[in-house]
Amino acid sequence: MLIPFEKLRSEFTRVLLSLGFGEEKALQCATIFAENSRDGVYTHGLNRFPTFVQYINEGLVIPAAEPTKEGGFGAIEQWNGNLGPGMLNAQFCTERAISLAKENGIGCVAIKNTSHWMRGGTYGWQAAEAGLICICFTNTIANMPPWGGIDPRLGNNPLIIAVPRKEGHVVLDMAISQYSFGKLNLYKSKNEQLPLPGGYDMEGNLTTDPAAIIESQRSLPVGFWKGSGLSLVLDLLATVLSQGQSTAVVTNNGSESGVSQVFICIQPKTGLQTDTLIEEIIDYTKSSRPENEGGEIFYPGENTLRTREKSLKDGVWVDEVIWEKVLGL
Amino acid sequence: MLIPFEKLRSEFTRVLLSLGFGEEKALQCATIFAENSRDGVYTHGLNRFPTFVQYINEGLVIPAAEPTKEGGFGAIEQWNGNLGPGMLNAQFCTERAISLAKENGIGCVAIKNTSHWMRGGTYGWQAAEAGLICICFTNTIANMPPWGGIDPRLGNNPLIIAVPRKEGHVVLDMAISQYSFGKLNLYKSKNEQLPLPGGYDMEGNLTTDPAAIIESQRSLPVGFWKGSGLSLVLDLLATVLSQGQSTAVVTNNGSESGVSQVFICIQPKTGLQTDTLIEEIIDYTKSSRPENEGGEIFYPGENTLRTREKSLKDGVWVDEVIWEKVLGL
Repeated sequence: MLIPFEKLRSEFTRVLLSLGFGEEKALQCATIFAENSRDGVYTHGLNRFPTFVQYINEGLVIPAAEPTKEGGFGAIEQWNGNLGPGMLNAQFCTERAISLAKENGIGCVAIKNTSHWMRGGTYGWQAAEAGLICICFTNTIANMPPWGGIDPRLGNNPLIIAVPRKEGHVVLDMAISQYSFGKLNLYKSKNEQLPLPGGYDMEGNLTTDPAAIIESQRSLPVGFWKGSGLSLVLDLLATVLSQGQSTAVVTNNGSESGVSQVFICIQPKTGLQTDTLIEEIIDYTKSSRPENEGGEIFYPGENTLRTREKSLKDGVWVDEVIWEKVLGL
Repeated sequence: MLIPFEKLRSEFTRVLLSLGFGEEKALQCATIFAENSRDGVYTHGLNRFPTFVQYINEGLVIPAAEPTKEGGFGAIEQWNGNLGPGMLNAQFCTERAISLAKENGIGCVAIKNTSHWMRGGTYGWQAAEAGLICICFTNTIANMPPWGGIDPRLGNNPLIIAVPRKEGHVVLDMAISQYSFGKLNLYKSKNEQLPLPGGYDMEGNLTTDPAAIIESQRSLPVGFWKGSGLSLVLDLLATVLSQGQSTAVVTNNGSESGVSQVFICIQPKTGLQTDTLIEEIIDYTKSSRPENEGGEIFYPGENTLRTREKSLKDGVWVDEVIWEKVLGL
């Protein structure tokens, strides 16, 4: 079912206002949720909205909380998210990192005690819109075993890298698990197999069955031992730089609340030379012959733009059941 | 065959002196090659040394060249490597990034026109020894197809992330291909299959046969489409920040020379609190039950330390054929 973007946003706004959000914050949060669905990241748009409401009702996300500064030195700063809405905290930190980068060439903001930022790509797009390169990441609750182990001890710690580009920003937004749990649930709900193995079943065999992976809790890190190591170091960076809670502590607390995040922005040289370098890289990548006839090579963020255009023209796709649920909130 | 570390280093030094290296630079380069073998990264230690010598003889690496500053603003700097030895340029840039981070909390150095840095982990260890967090990466010649394509258009662009730690630094050193070409050649030379699929054969099937992957030139990125995107954005960052040559240009030049690299260092808060956070993360990760009885979960860098200790005690493992070759240089 297709819904106009504005309708989606205004419904989210209505619900958030009823939960004690101020007008500005309600609109800001609603915009992010609506934009995530608009861009095709349904798992962190409409589909996630009911959980967000539940977290607010349980006191795990505090609508009125504002980030407070814990420290800073030169081009780095530490903030406390005070369990405020993760998207607002993350937008704030990105804005701070942009300012620091404009002053110092590079800036780094770490935040502790914040909540789920929904789609990490949101902050990559934000920085790229401002003309900045962005590297940001978050830790999460443990949902992936380390390489060689069977119990989940690592988060899927999404990593975002964004590069501003005239013809459409390049925004990589990748969780360190091969498939996010949102994706696994999506495939499971459609009764479909994954295109490639995404984890292990209870017997320890690699499998494309999303239900088996959800059951075993043995989701696969990208690149096996490599993603396992990458997830660990991202947790280390987020935790050490923010002096916040690690995946270990968040997991032991029992709910994904009070996570740690890092936002690094860098000011690139702008102008024709840079534009040319970027196009050269993208054109070269796209010059690889496609594996399947009629196939196409995409850069990260390219499909997001296509989906965005389509959503704004034809309406944003929504899951009817969840949409009805939100209308009734 | 096992060789004392000092013997390995002095042989490398002897050869480098004969190639026109000054005493200090010869020792510095020789130390890096010897340490790479000492730490178990044979593909970028002894095994790579003859190729390094060949590059010097072909004029692709210029022993006496020094990096020159191209620009800088606040906590970021751009340098030109002038085709000097990649390891010396990389150590220099790491040192600069450390200084910038000590002054500004974070520092970023980009270098263009440099040569192969051998083991990227070298610079992660260097920064961690100085107490700094380090994120660094390089572009390379194209050796991996983008996701959905069959012609190599992406480099395996190694990414290094290091976190200083009292009990042994955490150093992730990962190329974006599932297996490096060094590893593929190693398996091929031993007539062994890879433990997991590492690319495609000429028919487009995933395979564990290293020879088939070398033939097809279709090495697999970590996490399929994710690693493909990650490789692309690392090339974008390295090229844009250094205003240097992209993987496209390096590849078109025909030899892996004049690559672009980025070194970011961050000053973490030091003290008991940080030490505790780090140990908590490592202990938690290791608390996952092992997949195989008697198995163990390792953090990135842990095995490096074990191999280092063993090499210093018993001698550094060398491939006899290559060792003889170096003795004859």
